[in-house]
Amino acid sequence: MDLYIALIHHPVVNKKGDVICSAITNLDLHDIARAARTYGVKGYYVVNPLEDQKILAAQVIRHWTEGSGGRINPARREAFSIVRLTDTLEDAIERIGRETEMPVHILATSARKNDKSVTFQEMRDRLPQIGCALLLFGTAWGLTSELIDRADYLIEPVKGCGDYNHLSVRSAVTVVLDRLLSGNGH
Amino acid sequence: MDLYIALIHHPVVNKKGDVICSAITNLDLHDIARAARTYGVKGYYVVNPLEDQKILAAQVIRHWTEGSGGRINPARREAFSIVRLTDTLEDAIERIGRETEMPVHILATSARKNDKSVTFQEMRDRLPQIGCALLLFGTAWGLTSELIDRADYLIEPVKGCGDYNHLSVRSAVTVVLDRLLSGNGH
Repeated sequence: MDLYIALIHHPVVNKKGDVICSAITNLDLHDIARAARTYGVKGYYVVNPLEDQKILAAQVIRHWTEGSGGRINPARREAFSIVRLTDTLEDAIERIGRETEMPVHILATSARKNDKSVTFQEMRDRLPQIGCALLLFGTAWGLTSELIDRADYLIEPVKGCGDYNHLSVRSAVTVVLDRLLSGNGH
Repeated sequence: MDLYIALIHHPVVNKKGDVICSAITNLDLHDIARAARTYGVKGYYVVNPLEDQKILAAQVIRHWTEGSGGRINPARREAFSIVRLTDTLEDAIERIGRETEMPVHILATSARKNDKSVTFQEMRDRLPQIGCALLLFGTAWGLTSELIDRADYLIEPVKGCGDYNHLSVRSAVTVVLDRLLSGNGH
């Protein structure tokens, strides 16, 4: 099974629910690339249409793949080798489809539930039958309802202990990958 | 069961194995406080003996507990309300002992194994019988062997898929808490 992830900077919502484009965060590149590589993710798409944001992210990626960063820290180079920049989710889906020559199933995570909602255990059991999947994560206050509605599967929210649930997107990505893909501990 | 966590900046080792004191990272405060609060951790101890580092961290904590940060983002204030600064691990253990009036069991995570090693499932099953536990995480290249040796339990390494395993400490803390304490997904 080929699993890909996408970190969406547009379209996402802000605190008030307006559709916005958020800024790329350096540590989102590092932490999520490291987690993705650890769990065998095939590609980590950073989705942002803003030209200046893409230039900045491309510089960071080059530093760790071709520059001195990667020479000093080969493990980080390996993590960054799966990072891809795209303008839109459509671009990412198209590139993944070309690469795998398979239909791309879209998985989303959200605090909302709908009739496509599945538990982590159900999704983990189902993944081996799915040839190729792209798992979406929203920055800022999360994915727009349009994006959630177009997903093939909506994975249940991560529950900690109690009502408080405000993980960073970096933490959320790691927990979701661990629950779906880990080799031990479950 | 009262679970506490500590992020150790000294004593930890660098790439060569020398014992060092690492610098506090802003996002280690945020991401780990948010994860700790999500999983019901009673206190998050940031262990660093350097005066300038403690001053900087205290400013960040105040901004989110008493300052404008917390007024704008009450969820972040709640996360930061459990962050504590101490010079040494001994200080942290003593404060936790006074607070809980129970013996403090020390749990460590490491890539090494020893005769105290337990799996995540064993530790999860055993936690309810332990009144009070402090879970240690190392920054830089990890905890010194002295710290690992003094732990009561050593939890097995997090395994992803394959041999690559270079999670950030922020990701590692979240996965370990999720595996030991989560309310769903396991």
